Formats: sequence, C-alpha cells, structure tokens
Amino acid sequence: MRIDIVTALPGLVAGPLEHSILRRAAQKGLVDVRVHDLRDYTTDRHRQVDDYPFGGGAGMVLKPEPIFACIEAIQQEAEAAGAPVDEVIYLTPDGEVFDQEMANRLSLRRHLVLLAGHYKGVDQRVRDALITREVSIGDYVLSGGELPALVLVDAIVRLLPGVLGDATSALSDSFQDRLLDAPVYTRPAEFRGMTVPDVLRSGDHPRIEAWRDAERLKKTRERRPDLLSRP
Amino acid sequence: MRIDIVTALPGLVAGPLEHSILRRAAQKGLVDVRVHDLRDYTTDRHRQVDDYPFGGGAGMVLKPEPIFACIEAIQQEAEAAGAPVDEVIYLTPDGEVFDQEMANRLSLRRHLVLLAGHYKGVDQRVRDALITREVSIGDYVLSGGELPALVLVDAIVRLLPGVLGDATSALSDSFQDRLLDAPVYTRPAEFRGMTVPDVLRSGDHPRIEAWRDAERLKKTRERRPDLLSRP
Repeated sequence: MRIDIVTALPGLVAGPLEHSILRRAAQKGLVDVRVHDLRDYTTDRHRQVDDYPFGGGAGMVLKPEPIFACIEAIQQEAEAAGAPVDEVIYLTPDGEVFDQEMANRLSLRRHLVLLAGHYKGVDQRVRDALITREVSIGDYVLSGGELPALVLVDAIVRLLPGVLGDATSALSDSFQDRLLDAPVYTRPAEFRGMTVPDVLRSGDHPRIEAWRDAERLKKTRERRPDLLSRP
Repeated sequence: MRIDIVTALPGLVAGPLEHSILRRAAQKGLVDVRVHDLRDYTTDRHRQVDDYPFGGGAGMVLKPEPIFACIEAIQQEAEAAGAPVDEVIYLTPDGEVFDQEMANRLSLRRHLVLLAGHYKGVDQRVRDALITREVSIGDYVLSGGELPALVLVDAIVRLLPGVLGDATSALSDSFQDRLLDAPVYTRPAEFRGMTVPDVLRSGDHPRIEAWRDAERLKKTRERRPDLLSRP
C-alpha cells in the first residue's frame, strides 16, 4: 500500500512515522508512506503556502496553487506507474466521521493521498476540485490535519496483513464486532492486594471465552449502548 | 498548565511536541508538557514494560508496576509543589468519546496526566485504582494511545489564552456553537476558472457574516444534522 501525506508541516508527521508499527510495516515493505512539503511546490521567493481569508476573519488559509501542484504531481506519477491514486482525502472537522468500518474499507485500497490542512483550512476550490473524500477523526478542532492524518495511517496500516505480529490481534479489537474489549490482566497475579479474576487463571479456555464475551457485552451496554443499537 | 504523558514509546510523542503550536505554547511558558518513559520505572534487568495476558489471546498488556511507580511519582511531586494532579486520563477506544466540550472543560484544569496504552492495553488494575477518566478520540482502534494523547494535548493547548495568535480564532471554529465552519477562500481570486464568491470580496461585513452563517447552517444540515438535534 502506498500513502502520501501532503502537509505544510512535514516535521510534525516525520517523527511518528519512524516509530512503532509504522516503521516496522515500512521495513517489511508492506506500506510506503511518503511525506510531501507544500513549500516544495510553491513558485514564489518566500515559498508562501498560506494567505489571509477573503472576507476577513481570524486564521490563515492554505493557498490552492501549491496543493494542486503537489497532488497533481503525485497523481501523474502514480498513473505513469500504472497504479492510480484511489482516494484524495482531506482531513477536516466537518468531514465524514472516521470509524473502524471506514478504516477496514480504506485498508483495502492501494494508494491513498492524505491532505492535512492547518489553522482555518484549505481554499474551498481544493475541496471542490481535488478531494474525493473528507474525513474527520472526531468532533473536536485541532491546530491542523497532521495528527488526524497520522491517526488514519495508524488505524489503516495495522490492518494490513503481516503488520501485527499475531494475525488474530486486530480482529479481537474493540469495534470489530461492535463490542468494546474485555478487561485484560498480566503478571503479577496479585498486586497490592488486587488479584486477577480466577477464571483467567483457570486454563479453561471455553470458560475464559465465555467470561470475555460477557464482559464485552456488559461494558458495551454500560458505556456505549449506541453501538449495540446501530443498524 | 502542566501535562504529563506516560508512555512505553516516548520517541513517538517527542517529535510532534517540538512542532507547531505546542512548541510555541511551551516557549511562551503557557504549557509544560513532559514525557515519561515507562522503562525508566521498571526494576528488572530487562526493563520489561509488558507481558502476556492472563487467559491467553493475542497482544501484550502493559504491566501494572511501572505505571503505578511513574504516576505516583508524578502525583507526589505535584502535591509537594502544592499543585496536585487534577485528572489521570487513560486513552482507550472504550473510553468516553472526546469532543470539543470535553476539550473546553479540560483546558480549564491545571495539571493533567495522560496514560497511553499500547497493543492490548494496560492491566485492568491500573484502570481500577489510578485512572480518573477514560477517554477515546473516536470509534476506531490504533496501535497505541500515543497519537490520541497528542490529539488531546493539541485540542486543549490551542484553547489556552495566548496560544493562538488571534484570540478570536478558536471561538470561530467548527463545533464551538455546534455548527460546522463555512467555506474559506484566499488569493488568487480566480484560479483555473474557479472564482471566489462575490460576497467575500464585497467588503460588506454584515453581508459577509450573514453569508457565512447561512453556509454554516447549510453545511451542518447536510453533513451533520445530528449536531443540530443534540440537547
């Protein structure tokens, strides 16, 4: 899978990509994540990527020209290589709300481009002409789309076959069957008077699975009954 | 404001903290974000922070001892300094779903501790005994709580007075009045035949505000009618 991240702040995304599962997935050749600095696609002397909004108001807006130049260059290169871009995703709080189902679907694509806005966002003409999908990671505002882009990359890449050490790990996660996960315990069996539930130390695996299923249903009912009632 | 991030992967959070508004907020003395490596709180030769789950199954679980040692050290230091920890937050997909209202509330606290789990999460006894609030950034699973911790820090820190250049910027964001934001445009006024709406170039500010209000309501009705019907 190939993922291109387009941003005015490449330094913000570079670090996390070099850690944890993302680095390992890249080392195994399972994903190729490239970061593009919008400043490299400017044509003026000051390499300006943002400007004041028409009509006034607070915050700066990312200019259309560098974004068009960058994303069209990625698209042209991808088409020349015979593997066109599947989606050009803009991260924005007013987008479609990201969830595990969307992560599952996007993990089946071959080539994603992720555009991170900053401050007040990008010029609307970028959204009208280039973007195929607008995605929000939640109902809150951040200083830019860089962390949301990393969240998408992490949620998607960990689903790719071979990325997690144990193939069953992702399937037993919260949300994969619309249930929250059961409590987990590790050694020591007793810590400051708090003990691990006996069933987990019983070695009786059918009983352990039954306990976990019951705990998952109980936690979901208590915390997120909305997940159980969704169509 | 003081924020402590407790993690087994300090390298993952270090980079983003050195960029963008977080670095500027720290430089201005508006926030003090410290990262704690759980490995520094282990007592065994291998500095082991995780172990297999009781009862079997995929994924590793963060051990209780280093987490208790780390968070209690932060709490003791904070109490000795006369500014006790307000909340110990665990980032987990089965937590309360983070939103702008929670960001607003948390931005009024003086001292937050954020615990990032990894893979299958932390030993349940940590959650039972140390954690005051469990928070999810959305209905999807990530490889760890590090990106969610950074999302909280970003959403909260940008609300602190003095962090954003323009004091009105945060108040005009999406969600602050349960409406999505209006389209924004910057120069050039015409780009590839696509023009900026005349009203935004009119200089007539009451008309511009009326247009923006109408666009915000229209976009919210189309994309997120649920925001309008919430109590």
